[in-house]
Amino acid sequence: MNDERRISPIFETITTPTLLLNRERAVANIQRMAARARHSGVRFRPHFKTHQSAVIGEWFRQAGVSAITVSSVSMAGYFARHGWTDITIAFPVNLREIEAINRLAGQVRLGLLVEAEAVVSTLSARLAAAVDVWLKVDVGYGRTGVDWADGPRLEALARQVEASPRMALRGLLTHAGHSYRARGQAEVAAVYRQMVHRLAAARDRLNRPGLELSIGDTPTCSLVDDLSAVDEIRPGNFVFFDVMQCQIGACREEEIAVAAVCPVVAVHPEQGKAVIYGGAVHLSKEFIVDPQGRQVFGWPALPAPDGWGPRLPEGYVSGLSQEHGLVRLPPDALAGLHPGDLLVILPVHSCLTANLLRTYHTLDGETFSMLA
Amino acid sequence: MNDERRISPIFETITTPTLLLNRERAVANIQRMAARARHSGVRFRPHFKTHQSAVIGEWFRQAGVSAITVSSVSMAGYFARHGWTDITIAFPVNLREIEAINRLAGQVRLGLLVEAEAVVSTLSARLAAAVDVWLKVDVGYGRTGVDWADGPRLEALARQVEASPRMALRGLLTHAGHSYRARGQAEVAAVYRQMVHRLAAARDRLNRPGLELSIGDTPTCSLVDDLSAVDEIRPGNFVFFDVMQCQIGACREEEIAVAAVCPVVAVHPEQGKAVIYGGAVHLSKEFIVDPQGRQVFGWPALPAPDGWGPRLPEGYVSGLSQEHGLVRLPPDALAGLHPGDLLVILPVHSCLTANLLRTYHTLDGETFSMLA
Repeated sequence: MNDERRISPIFETITTPTLLLNRERAVANIQRMAARARHSGVRFRPHFKTHQSAVIGEWFRQAGVSAITVSSVSMAGYFARHGWTDITIAFPVNLREIEAINRLAGQVRLGLLVEAEAVVSTLSARLAAAVDVWLKVDVGYGRTGVDWADGPRLEALARQVEASPRMALRGLLTHAGHSYRARGQAEVAAVYRQMVHRLAAARDRLNRPGLELSIGDTPTCSLVDDLSAVDEIRPGNFVFFDVMQCQIGACREEEIAVAAVCPVVAVHPEQGKAVIYGGAVHLSKEFIVDPQGRQVFGWPALPAPDGWGPRLPEGYVSGLSQEHGLVRLPPDALAGLHPGDLLVILPVHSCLTANLLRTYHTLDGETFSMLA
Repeated sequence: MNDERRISPIFETITTPTLLLNRERAVANIQRMAARARHSGVRFRPHFKTHQSAVIGEWFRQAGVSAITVSSVSMAGYFARHGWTDITIAFPVNLREIEAINRLAGQVRLGLLVEAEAVVSTLSARLAAAVDVWLKVDVGYGRTGVDWADGPRLEALARQVEASPRMALRGLLTHAGHSYRARGQAEVAAVYRQMVHRLAAARDRLNRPGLELSIGDTPTCSLVDDLSAVDEIRPGNFVFFDVMQCQIGACREEEIAVAAVCPVVAVHPEQGKAVIYGGAVHLSKEFIVDPQGRQVFGWPALPAPDGWGPRLPEGYVSGLSQEHGLVRLPPDALAGLHPGDLLVILPVHSCLTANLLRTYHTLDGETFSMLA
């Protein structure tokens, strides 16, 4: 086995795939994004779906955050119980949860997203407390929302909301998920410019005073310096970052704040690979396609005194089954690796990996669980 | 909303993505596979990683099963606590869990997989109770194991195991995961024939009396009628089946026994799609590529009195983000769909979907959780 006992006491007790959290990096990521928001004079309403943790939520509070975003009613309930009083559920309203929504709306300032007149009608009839309403706009991602150019539909929705005594029209909200297909600052900035142009055009057509614009994706919020064309940013992933954000250029590898520590169970130097206990149920099946056209499910690194070292050159996770991971490594890296050692895997999509592993282990030995 | 209240009371209370289990189908799948094993005169040691449930384990017990397979030490511990006394951990030994392995070996007949001399040496020194040992053989899948043609290495491992008083050499074990790339009975049968040829060749070279052969993949065990060339089969997925097994031809759609029920939150007829509350954290990012070259993350169906109806023609889940799913549907299907309705999604890979949703809801209203 490698000398992880000499490296950091955290590794000594690890026997199964474990989510390691570099608190220092996460706090730095939070502070950097908070400073970016201040610099642009926009509200910072971070998305808490990435970490889903009240403990990490406090790190945001210490950075001055008081308004948050979540992606489900149950997540909103969890953070409401932990003292958050201004929460947007950035997901089209799920009418089947109207009772839980009403309970929440009675407790906190609740923001909801609407994009369909039928939903606004039902809400109008069934809401028991006041809510903020954002019109969900599609600026080109194509996931969901009203097309930014569909002025009549946005106008109809706005009128419907204004006619409902319990709904306050707050503004237009979008998620430019297509920034994930961009590479580098210039391409991401182009997505941002187009998004802002479209949002502003939609707002101008609505022609109502005080309507706000809210955007959400981590690449844009990380790479565009002047965000002052909008009123609110809702990035989430940046707290941890991951391999995908590195590929986009939204972070440096040294800013990735979570990783999965996985036991090595087999080494096959003749095949250029090691096998880890760490599979789809730990890392998720999310992958990137690297410049060589290969599917990459994570980047391997070695345990180090400060958590983990740099990504092993040429190394990548090439495949995952339910519990197995295959890690391609060059001969020199494999020569030093033995069953019983640990590899640290930088995740492709930290939100999904954290959601699977659920319990955070900080480098200083603190342990806490998601939604606990 | 659609009339699911008139359809089945189970749907009435569903508000968030929910794992529905058709018990009748699962029991039929179990009985069919048990009968196949009996017909071929081979031991049926089903893999319990798919369901991870003591309740479902009892359905296997009623079909005459007494020996099981799991993929982790913790899963072995769970099923040992639920009265299973003959358990193979079909995963290369994780030396970091030696203490838990020793506890288990003292309680049940425990089977371990080895493929490296360094691991056998450590086990030899540290095992505190007797275990069965299987040599893990790679017959062409390329995930892990000793290459079937590497006679000297298999011989060295066998000698090492025989020299250890606590290890009993049981046989050769493989997982022909490449059967998942086959399509239809003939291609799967070809994988089986090659696998059996290779396993038998490796056993012949070892030339020891009583060595058994154990195979594991669901496609082979479902599609090959005469499995008598081996001694043991360890399929797991067949208890639920899924879209992937349908694509291979290992099951019919009517045999799929689990599905994720997801609320519809938006309908965009002009874009040919609906949006569901049901994303990567519910279904997993596993996909198949369909004959049209499209990535498919699930098949949509409608709630029905007996659980769910047939797959909606032309319908498929085309994309997933953390909580959103995009469902492509033809105009007639979209015309009848509204926010607040439910869609039933047949999973691409039932093992991963069950592992994410964790709590089973049977059609007759029973509820029980994985590993509980």
